[in-house]
Amino acid sequence: MSENLRFVLDEADMPTHWYNIVADFPTPPPPPLHPGTREPVGPDDLAALFPPELIAQEVTTERYVEIPEAVRDVYRQFRPSPLVRARTWEKALGTNARIYYKYEGVSPAGSHKTNTAIPQVYYNSINGVTKLTTETGAGQWGTALSYASAFFGLECEVWQVGASFDTKPQRRTLIEVYGGTVHRSPSQLTEFGKTLPADHPGSLGIAISEAVEVAAQNDSIKYALGSVLNHVLLHQSIIGEEALKQLAMAGEESADIVVGCAGGGSNLAGLTFPFLRENLQGRTSTRIVAVEPASCPTLTKGQYRYDFGDTGGMTPLMKMYTLGHSFVPSPIHAGGLRYHAMAPLVSHAVHEGYIEAVALHQRECFETALEFARTEGIVPAPESSHALAQAKRFALEANEQGTSPVIVIGLSGHGLLELGAYESYLAGRLEDDALSQADVDAALAELPEI
Amino acid sequence: MSENLRFVLDEADMPTHWYNIVADFPTPPPPPLHPGTREPVGPDDLAALFPPELIAQEVTTERYVEIPEAVRDVYRQFRPSPLVRARTWEKALGTNARIYYKYEGVSPAGSHKTNTAIPQVYYNSINGVTKLTTETGAGQWGTALSYASAFFGLECEVWQVGASFDTKPQRRTLIEVYGGTVHRSPSQLTEFGKTLPADHPGSLGIAISEAVEVAAQNDSIKYALGSVLNHVLLHQSIIGEEALKQLAMAGEESADIVVGCAGGGSNLAGLTFPFLRENLQGRTSTRIVAVEPASCPTLTKGQYRYDFGDTGGMTPLMKMYTLGHSFVPSPIHAGGLRYHAMAPLVSHAVHEGYIEAVALHQRECFETALEFARTEGIVPAPESSHALAQAKRFALEANEQGTSPVIVIGLSGHGLLELGAYESYLAGRLEDDALSQADVDAALAELPEI
Repeated sequence: MSENLRFVLDEADMPTHWYNIVADFPTPPPPPLHPGTREPVGPDDLAALFPPELIAQEVTTERYVEIPEAVRDVYRQFRPSPLVRARTWEKALGTNARIYYKYEGVSPAGSHKTNTAIPQVYYNSINGVTKLTTETGAGQWGTALSYASAFFGLECEVWQVGASFDTKPQRRTLIEVYGGTVHRSPSQLTEFGKTLPADHPGSLGIAISEAVEVAAQNDSIKYALGSVLNHVLLHQSIIGEEALKQLAMAGEESADIVVGCAGGGSNLAGLTFPFLRENLQGRTSTRIVAVEPASCPTLTKGQYRYDFGDTGGMTPLMKMYTLGHSFVPSPIHAGGLRYHAMAPLVSHAVHEGYIEAVALHQRECFETALEFARTEGIVPAPESSHALAQAKRFALEANEQGTSPVIVIGLSGHGLLELGAYESYLAGRLEDDALSQADVDAALAELPEI
Repeated sequence: MSENLRFVLDEADMPTHWYNIVADFPTPPPPPLHPGTREPVGPDDLAALFPPELIAQEVTTERYVEIPEAVRDVYRQFRPSPLVRARTWEKALGTNARIYYKYEGVSPAGSHKTNTAIPQVYYNSINGVTKLTTETGAGQWGTALSYASAFFGLECEVWQVGASFDTKPQRRTLIEVYGGTVHRSPSQLTEFGKTLPADHPGSLGIAISEAVEVAAQNDSIKYALGSVLNHVLLHQSIIGEEALKQLAMAGEESADIVVGCAGGGSNLAGLTFPFLRENLQGRTSTRIVAVEPASCPTLTKGQYRYDFGDTGGMTPLMKMYTLGHSFVPSPIHAGGLRYHAMAPLVSHAVHEGYIEAVALHQRECFETALEFARTEGIVPAPESSHALAQAKRFALEANEQGTSPVIVIGLSGHGLLELGAYESYLAGRLEDDALSQADVDAALAELPEI
C-alpha cells in the first residue's frame, strides 16, 4: 500500500479514449422518441441542436471513442485530476475503511462539468458554430461552458435558473469573467419565457426550453447540455478511467464501493461506468451507489418511463426515472441535483440492477461536509457532500462489521461559490425536505401516458 | 524542453527543509528593537506572543531548517504545488518568452498562506497553546489559520479588517466552515479597539493590535502573524525550493526573471529567496522583481527606516520600507497588498539591490487577470494579478527585443472569493489610485524619529 496521500497520473498517462457503457450492457437501453411522431429519433432530428460528431457519439455502440488531441490539450490544463486518500478523515471516523476521493474541483470551473464542456465546444468550433446557448442551475455548467467557449473563441449565452440568478451574483460574475453572457430564466428573450411571469423562480427544465428555442432558430448557434445525454456521460468517463489507474498506483486491486452524487447523472456515470464495465466484464464485483437528495428523489421515488427532458416539451422523449417534466424541486434544498429526471443510461443501469440508489437529507450532508473540510481541507460542493455522507455511512457500517472496504468517492467539485448555503447551515437555517411517494405519484398521474 | 503543461513533483520529492536567506546575505539585516527600550529585542521579549521554536526561527542564521514530519504530513494534502507552463497565454501574447507560473491556489485556503499557518499552529500545539489570535485583511490569512487550527485542534479567533468584513461575508463563512471565530475590527473586545469608532473601516495595523492585545493577556493564547516576520518568510521558502526543482523537470537551466506580488512580503520572499540564494552563491543571475500596488507603494515610495509593525505601536520596531504605521491604504484598491510596510528581509534585499521593485495600477492588473483567466482557466487573486501584469510587460518587451526569456510568476492564489472586485472591474467601476511622493513624505514626517 502506498504511503502517498495523492495519486497524480503523469499527463502522458491521461486516458486517450472515452468509454461508452452501451457496448457492455447485455440489454440495449430503449431509444429516445421524437416528441411529435413518437418514433425513435434519427440523427437528422438532432441536427438543429448539435454538431454531427456529438450526434454520432449520442448513438454510437462503439466501446471506446478517441479523445481529439485538441481536447486533450485543454484537459491538460487541469487533468489528470488527483485521487486522494482521505487519511485524516479516516482517522476522525475511526475506521479501517480505506477511503479515496477523486477530486474534480481542480478544474478551472471548479467541477467535473469542464470534462464535457471542452469537447462540446471543440466539436462545435470545427463545424463553424459561433455561439452556444445553454441553461445553468447551481451555475457550475454555465461556468464550464463559458470557460471552454473562451478557449475556442465562441460566444456563450447562459440562461440561469431565476432563483439561482437572484441569490448567487458571484456565479454570474464568474461566467462573465470567462466572457459569457448570463440571462435570468425565465427571460423575456424567448417565446417560452414570455409565457411565464417575470418573477418566476425558474427551473432547469424551463431554462433548457429557453436555450433550445434560441439555438433552434439559427444555423450558426447550437445548444449544449451539461448532463443527461449519452455524449455528455461519455465525455465524463475520463474520471473513472483515471480513477482505475490511480487506484492501481495506490496499490489497491479494486474498489469495494464506489459512490457518487446524482442530479442529471453525468457525474455519477463519469466516475462509475468504467467501474461498472469491470463488473459487467466479470473482473470485479464493486458496489456502485448513486446518492440523490430526498427533496428530488428521481431514482428512489420516480417512475421509469418516457418523459421529456425539458419543461416546454421540446426535447425528445427519453426512457428514464422521472418525477414528471413539470416537477419543480423545493427551493429549500441548497445544492444542485435538482433535475426532474435521470440520464437514460444511468436510469437503465439502475433499472437493470447494476447501480443502487439512495436518497439523503441535506443536513446530514452538510454535517459531513463540514467534517470533511476540517480534516481534508477541501470545502465540498453541496452536491458532492451527498456522496461523502453516504460514504461515511458505509465506513461506520464497516466499523460495526469489523471490515475494511476500499471506498471511492466522486468529489465532483468545490463549494467555494456555495458558501451562502454553508452560512445557512451554520446559522441553523437549513431545513430538510422530503417528497412523499404520494406527492410523486400524484404529479406523475397528471402527465399524459406515452 | 518538456511538452508537459504541468510539472508536479512527487510527494517524496517535496523539500524537507526550509531555506533561510539570512545565511547568504553578505551584510546582516538590522535587528528589531524593543518598542520601549529601543534596544535589540531578545527571545524573552517575544515569549508572550510566540512559542520557542518560532522565536528560534525568527533569529536563526542557519541556512536550512528541517520541516517537522507532522508539518510535511499536512503539506501533503496539497503540496508539492504545480508549476505550470502558460502555453495558451503565451500564444495569446504572441511571445517567445517561456512563461511558467507557480500556483499556490491549490491549497485548501486558496493561497500560499497555508504554508506558514500549518507550522505556526503545529509549534503552538506542541507547546500546550489552545487558542490562536490573528488579523486578516482580504481574508486569506484568516482562512489559512482557521484551516490549520482545525487540523491540530486549536481554537482560532480572527479580527477581520472592518471594510473587508462588511463586504465579504463569504470570507467570514469560509473561516467559520473551518471552525474559526471572526470579529469585525475595530471591535469592542479590546482596549485598543474601544478607542476607535465602531464604524471605523479598520486596517491591518489596527487588527494586529487587537489580536496581539488578546494574546498577550493569557499564557494559553498565542498570536500568529501571516507575513512580515522572518519565520513566516522562512516557511514560505518551500514555494521557491519546489519551483527550482520543477524548472529543472521542465528542462530549463534557470529563470531569467522571477516576479511576485508584494504586500507584507511573504509570498514574494517564499518564491524568490531560493532563486536569490542561487544568485548570491554565484550560480545564476536571475532578475527578481517585486510588484506592489500604486495605491500602497511601500518599496517604491516609502522610506527605509525603523517603524512599528502595527498601528497601536505594540510590536517591536523593525527596519523596513514603510509608509508610516498609521497609514491606511485607500479602500479604492480591490486587492490585498495593503500593508503599510514591507518584511524586513525583503526590505533589506531591496535596499541592497538584490531585488527590484515596481508599482502598478489595478486596472492594468485586472485587465491582465481576465486575459489570463480566459486562456489559462484560473481566476487569479487580485494580489497575484500584479505579478501577471508585470510578467506581461516583460514578455512584450522581449517580443520587441527579439528575446525569449524564461519568466517565472508567483501565482499566489485564486480569486474565487474576490469575484466582487471582478464584478466592479467588469462594470467599469474600479478606479486607479496612486499615492504621490509628497503624500508619503508628509505622512512619514509626522512619525517620531527612531
